[in-house]
Amino acid sequence: MNFKNIAILFLIGTVSVSCSQQSDSTQTARSESQTSPVFSKGEKITNDNFVGTAWLNYLAEADTVHNVNIGLVTFEPGARTNWHYHKGGQILLVTEGKGLYQEKGKPVEIIEMGQVIKCPPNIEHWHGATLTEAMTHIAIGTNTNIGGAVWLKPVTDEEYNAI
Amino acid sequence: MNFKNIAILFLIGTVSVSCSQQSDSTQTARSESQTSPVFSKGEKITNDNFVGTAWLNYLAEADTVHNVNIGLVTFEPGARTNWHYHKGGQILLVTEGKGLYQEKGKPVEIIEMGQVIKCPPNIEHWHGATLTEAMTHIAIGTNTNIGGAVWLKPVTDEEYNAI
Repeated sequence: MNFKNIAILFLIGTVSVSCSQQSDSTQTARSESQTSPVFSKGEKITNDNFVGTAWLNYLAEADTVHNVNIGLVTFEPGARTNWHYHKGGQILLVTEGKGLYQEKGKPVEIIEMGQVIKCPPNIEHWHGATLTEAMTHIAIGTNTNIGGAVWLKPVTDEEYNAI
Repeated sequence: MNFKNIAILFLIGTVSVSCSQQSDSTQTARSESQTSPVFSKGEKITNDNFVGTAWLNYLAEADTVHNVNIGLVTFEPGARTNWHYHKGGQILLVTEGKGLYQEKGKPVEIIEMGQVIKCPPNIEHWHGATLTEAMTHIAIGTNTNIGGAVWLKPVTDEEYNAI
């Protein structure tokens, strides 16, 4: 996922101390009786690399020291990325709900909270919510020193509804 | 954090499909009324790189494709890592509670749920819970192709209690 294309979206609240800390200041410490999310969903994505309504909270920008970028992406029901691939690969940590993941030429997979998906470099794929349920994942773009996401065509309604 | 030293600890439940998926099978889809964690806390850490009681769920092992490792580490009150550094750097995503983070020669920082801490390579540091509150973070070891964690001395009770 190329977060550089989403340059106008930025973290809600930052705290800068020593070793480059950021905080999502809209969150308070969670107790057992609270169900507020750990990270806010951020800003609505407005570029054309997604179909439907999706949100991005850019947790960590790529830099030349760590060579990863990290974003929290929330897909409302029916929302999904376009087909795309990552020059350096990607790892998804599904943190809420149920969603879909598909690689080119392979069947669609259901992905759920608690799952970890490793996507190798240059494998065309898409991911998103189901038609009826939202899904949130932490998306870690790896080896950003090699390159980022390359965006392709949308997942059409025909493709998506046939699942 | 060198997860290779914790080789006997492994994920609870795995599902292997296409693009290398893993799932924490003890978790069910979370609804608004549930407060069960997204990822289980895993296994108690038994090596001597930690003081106190801490748990590790190894979400993604390092590989030569992605060059990161990802673990969920839960520190019970009073628990902390030893002093250590990462040859390739590290990024922490604090997902629960309140904890402590300190780099050598700098004051201790309080870190809280929702914060992101970027730790550059070769900077000696430690992190853990406070004396009275637990803390959980996702720890992403970056550039594992360069190397992993190098473990140093414990944070003594004298150092820790003086905070």
